[in-house]
Amino acid sequence: MRVLITGVSGFVGFRLAKFLVSQGHQVAGTFLRDRPLLDDVELFDVDLLDVNLLVETVCRVEPEAVVHLAGLSHVGESWSRPADYFRVNVLGSENLVRAASGARLLVASSAEVYGFVPEDEQPISEARIVAPQSPYSLTKAAMERMVLAAGGLVVRSFNILGPGQAQSFALPAFARQLVAITRNEQQAVLKVGNLTARRDFVHVDDAVGGFELLMREGEPGSCYNLGSGTAFSIQETLGHLIRLSGVVTEIEEDPARFRPVDVPLLLADNGRLAALGWTMEKDLNDALQDLWQSTVALAAGVPGIHISTSV
Amino acid sequence: MRVLITGVSGFVGFRLAKFLVSQGHQVAGTFLRDRPLLDDVELFDVDLLDVNLLVETVCRVEPEAVVHLAGLSHVGESWSRPADYFRVNVLGSENLVRAASGARLLVASSAEVYGFVPEDEQPISEARIVAPQSPYSLTKAAMERMVLAAGGLVVRSFNILGPGQAQSFALPAFARQLVAITRNEQQAVLKVGNLTARRDFVHVDDAVGGFELLMREGEPGSCYNLGSGTAFSIQETLGHLIRLSGVVTEIEEDPARFRPVDVPLLLADNGRLAALGWTMEKDLNDALQDLWQSTVALAAGVPGIHISTSV
Repeated sequence: MRVLITGVSGFVGFRLAKFLVSQGHQVAGTFLRDRPLLDDVELFDVDLLDVNLLVETVCRVEPEAVVHLAGLSHVGESWSRPADYFRVNVLGSENLVRAASGARLLVASSAEVYGFVPEDEQPISEARIVAPQSPYSLTKAAMERMVLAAGGLVVRSFNILGPGQAQSFALPAFARQLVAITRNEQQAVLKVGNLTARRDFVHVDDAVGGFELLMREGEPGSCYNLGSGTAFSIQETLGHLIRLSGVVTEIEEDPARFRPVDVPLLLADNGRLAALGWTMEKDLNDALQDLWQSTVALAAGVPGIHISTSV
Repeated sequence: MRVLITGVSGFVGFRLAKFLVSQGHQVAGTFLRDRPLLDDVELFDVDLLDVNLLVETVCRVEPEAVVHLAGLSHVGESWSRPADYFRVNVLGSENLVRAASGARLLVASSAEVYGFVPEDEQPISEARIVAPQSPYSLTKAAMERMVLAAGGLVVRSFNILGPGQAQSFALPAFARQLVAITRNEQQAVLKVGNLTARRDFVHVDDAVGGFELLMREGEPGSCYNLGSGTAFSIQETLGHLIRLSGVVTEIEEDPARFRPVDVPLLLADNGRLAALGWTMEKDLNDALQDLWQSTVALAAGVPGIHISTSV
């Protein structure tokens, strides 16, 4: 298929572009400012808020499918920049929905739209009514309504993990600190936020497989959870990462790393996606190993390591 | 015209219904739980989240115009109930837009969607890109997009003031405290929040006139500011109310009355509405007098005083 990816320099976009190329798709991508190193991908520097340029780009690419990954994605940051989150995630997505009419449209939303869900009502199915709790999730929930009304597909990602995620997210930030400790660039004190939250992690490569599958086979105008179906606390996950790293460190709570609202548990019912044939080939251990190795390589100055600069 | 008002028991809805009846319109209204005392208005107890009942109601009324005022409207409260604000203001409005397709649609939004606007860029025109700062304004801004896409009209109300507003809002709350002081039910200490914010107040009767005019003459798929074009600080406005009341009182800041985010100034450019022939017949003094008298009458148990129970 001829596919346009928005946010192709991002964590998921970059790996999705590579995977789609490997599968024989013809791939174009938009990025903002930071041009990614992607051979075989036609690249366009486009701000989603620039309607004219966006329309022009879509007209040039003539995509059969559009995978919309661009956006502001940091829950914590959204509390201090709600207007930016609204503009990019809602107005930007609205521009894209209009520009891309005619193509199959797949957009990345987030499990955060579910909000506080009692434990005995988890795993969470797509039929559950949303209850967004943060400015970020309010913008994602609003975007979803627009996309569904236009017949697009919504992918509610749970916690995607692996190499290349921006270091403003919890586990990449921990990995970076651990690397700094091994390199004696930081005292052996790891700064952490809320470790009690439990999250459903999925390896970025399995996530990318889900996006590709949904792009081809997903039902228009509907939502799909993208998660593993298993939850781990941030505490357990961090413990695992520390063991992998071999680092001996103290752990210290840093109030600045706590969010105003933090949902205790988000666990996916991935039955809808599995029914299309999606399977996972990697587990949390793989994701943490890949994250660790890419973080070590980045710090060592190994060339060609892609880290998303988005937040 | 045959008109359906949602939120007919609210502050604006109640007076709009009376005004429309006086102008010869045929009026129906929806309310939630608290049935208002409105003769000559066909009343329906409908939750906007109950799609089936909503569709059934619209089919029974067969309105030529729908004025959508129902919703959660308290900026401060939205920080602690974002999911409720999303459901009612976004999902509820989406249900209404669908149910009412075919009728002229007018929806109440808020100047809060403009966010922080530098003083030298005020008064604010409708062409300004929105920058919502609170969960409340995020939901209103999202609702606007949906309504505009469906060809509806958006009314961005600045601060509507007058008799009947719920006592959770600043000036009605001050009036209630002042009445309590005159009745020796409260010590002569008035609790206040941020008094430095400057707002554009419009009398509810002039606001109602604006809604009626837009219902008939407004341009579909566009936004209209509804404000006086003059701003007063909450401090000045409160001083005026205190003088009117004749009460001698201390003033004390109450941290619970401060909002996490409070925009310093919101001042309307009302040129678009004025160009349709809208004029104001009342000023801030009238609004405060009417507010004061209705608050005194309510406390004295005078029957027939309508106070919105919404927040």
